Amino acid sequence: MSEQTIADLGEFGFVELLKSRLAPASQVLLGLGDDAAIVQLDSSRVVASTDMLVEGQHFKKDWSSARDIGHRAAAANLADIIATGATPTALLIGLAIPSATKVDWLIELVDGICEEAALVNTAVVGGDTTKSETLTISITALGNINDSGLSQAPLKRSGAEPGNLVILAGRLGWAEAGLNALRRGFKSPKIVCDAHRRPKVPYFAGTIAKDFVSSMIDISDGLLQDLNHIAKASDVHIDIKTTALIPEQEILDVAAALNVDPMIWVMTGGDDHAFVATLPRSRQVPDGFKVIGEVFKGEAQVTIDGKHFLGPKGHDHFKFS
Amino acid sequence: MSEQTIADLGEFGFVELLKSRLAPASQVLLGLGDDAAIVQLDSSRVVASTDMLVEGQHFKKDWSSARDIGHRAAAANLADIIATGATPTALLIGLAIPSATKVDWLIELVDGICEEAALVNTAVVGGDTTKSETLTISITALGNINDSGLSQAPLKRSGAEPGNLVILAGRLGWAEAGLNALRRGFKSPKIVCDAHRRPKVPYFAGTIAKDFVSSMIDISDGLLQDLNHIAKASDVHIDIKTTALIPEQEILDVAAALNVDPMIWVMTGGDDHAFVATLPRSRQVPDGFKVIGEVFKGEAQVTIDGKHFLGPKGHDHFKFS
Repeated sequence: MSEQTIADLGEFGFVELLKSRLAPASQVLLGLGDDAAIVQLDSSRVVASTDMLVEGQHFKKDWSSARDIGHRAAAANLADIIATGATPTALLIGLAIPSATKVDWLIELVDGICEEAALVNTAVVGGDTTKSETLTISITALGNINDSGLSQAPLKRSGAEPGNLVILAGRLGWAEAGLNALRRGFKSPKIVCDAHRRPKVPYFAGTIAKDFVSSMIDISDGLLQDLNHIAKASDVHIDIKTTALIPEQEILDVAAALNVDPMIWVMTGGDDHAFVATLPRSRQVPDGFKVIGEVFKGEAQVTIDGKHFLGPKGHDHFKFS
Repeated sequence: MSEQTIADLGEFGFVELLKSRLAPASQVLLGLGDDAAIVQLDSSRVVASTDMLVEGQHFKKDWSSARDIGHRAAAANLADIIATGATPTALLIGLAIPSATKVDWLIELVDGICEEAALVNTAVVGGDTTKSETLTISITALGNINDSGLSQAPLKRSGAEPGNLVILAGRLGWAEAGLNALRRGFKSPKIVCDAHRRPKVPYFAGTIAKDFVSSMIDISDGLLQDLNHIAKASDVHIDIKTTALIPEQEILDVAAALNVDPMIWVMTGGDDHAFVATLPRSRQVPDGFKVIGEVFKGEAQVTIDGKHFLGPKGHDHFKFS
């Protein structure tokens, strides 16, 4: 690792370095270095989502490599785009960077962002860098709406209807278990800690599902809280079944070691970026999804096995406290 | 002013508050509150630009009101979009906020962003808020490319040709003069300090010019540095005439008081977001522009009255030092 810092390299040098690391992408008509990026879309509607990650709040350099942090930052935005039924196309990266930050660290970060984006054929098309006391990563993702499916994109939270099944792709509670282990000073089990560091987002399940589902959301604030967004927006009662949500052995082990009820992580943990959707019963459950509940007429709320959840309120990783 | 802080209100409360302050806009198909925003465009290409402003680096609460900071943050991005020949359509706002920040201050900030955006019929469509030690504003602007003009959008920095005139709309050196006055502890002359706080961007001149010019850039890093980007990208020699760039009396007065050569502010000051463009001689100079130089064959460089500029290097407000 070189000891060169961003202060040594300067902004223009860093932009040149970034340019050299970005793969050319056909949808990018004008990329880094001009005032703005131009992205080719297939339709005349663009989907856009922005997220900020702050050192100490969303990640710690002690817990995650720069490459992991890049993966995670990109994943959060890409999952948001897919949850609307759109296809991610382009990322813009804003980096506010302390002067002493190592250039090698930043390269790893950007490589991680690019690698995650490449999983869904998305290119980094632009960005901004500036100095700050607090390392802050701001990512904006753009997506393309494709109307070829059976459902009408964009998928809204308000689309769930009584009689729909609730279906899930991806893991629950893993990132939260990893975060809890890391917070207590553990670095193992690695597979659980890694779930916090680098979420395994079931992008392709989300992409397949978009043509069949009545609503979809990526779980970033916890299953209960995110399903509650759908219940409120759709004015429906959603009930989920714990029998469909038995935690994996790895999660049970960590929960036992930390003396925590693992169902709390499953129900309220964010950051795994699983996709939860509501599906008309006439449709086949899309590949990669499993049924975890049902949608009913009634008060807009989420219940578990017909009862209210008595654990802590849904995870809010933006909570000001 | 209420004493309520963002920590008191919480993120969900703040998002609701923001939603209540945004005017409905026809191009927003899905706005704040869902995972991503959907924006209607007229073409299948989208222009995107992102900028971060950091407290202490780009603004100080002592120097500027929250509303001013909002105006300035939006202006930087909107000018970038217009400089490519596109029409701004939508903004996404990322806010990383210290817990003790007053909600009233944040409302003023967002109102300032919305007011500046409204000058060019642009809507705030989404965003993200999170906690940070360092107040950081990240704005992403989206624009629509309209190919109805005579020039081919997007305008690139590489479009300048020998024989073109160099034309300018907007002010130079004002924001830099204001910044220098504020840095020395002065709050007057107010008109000059206000030029730092809230740039007067000649948006409509830029919008008119896009159909006639061969290249355009908004001056955010200083006239010399930004023209140098055009000279390098177009492989041309650009010469500008000081007789066309005589500073206004207000700037001369501040420069005399601070014992600074005012031409340094004119040549290297950023943040006024003037537009400089290159224009084929066959075209009429667009409304709001004046001729300040010419484009020649020769070494890719910028000269002043035929000579190299001997003052300090172009202003780099992202400089890491």
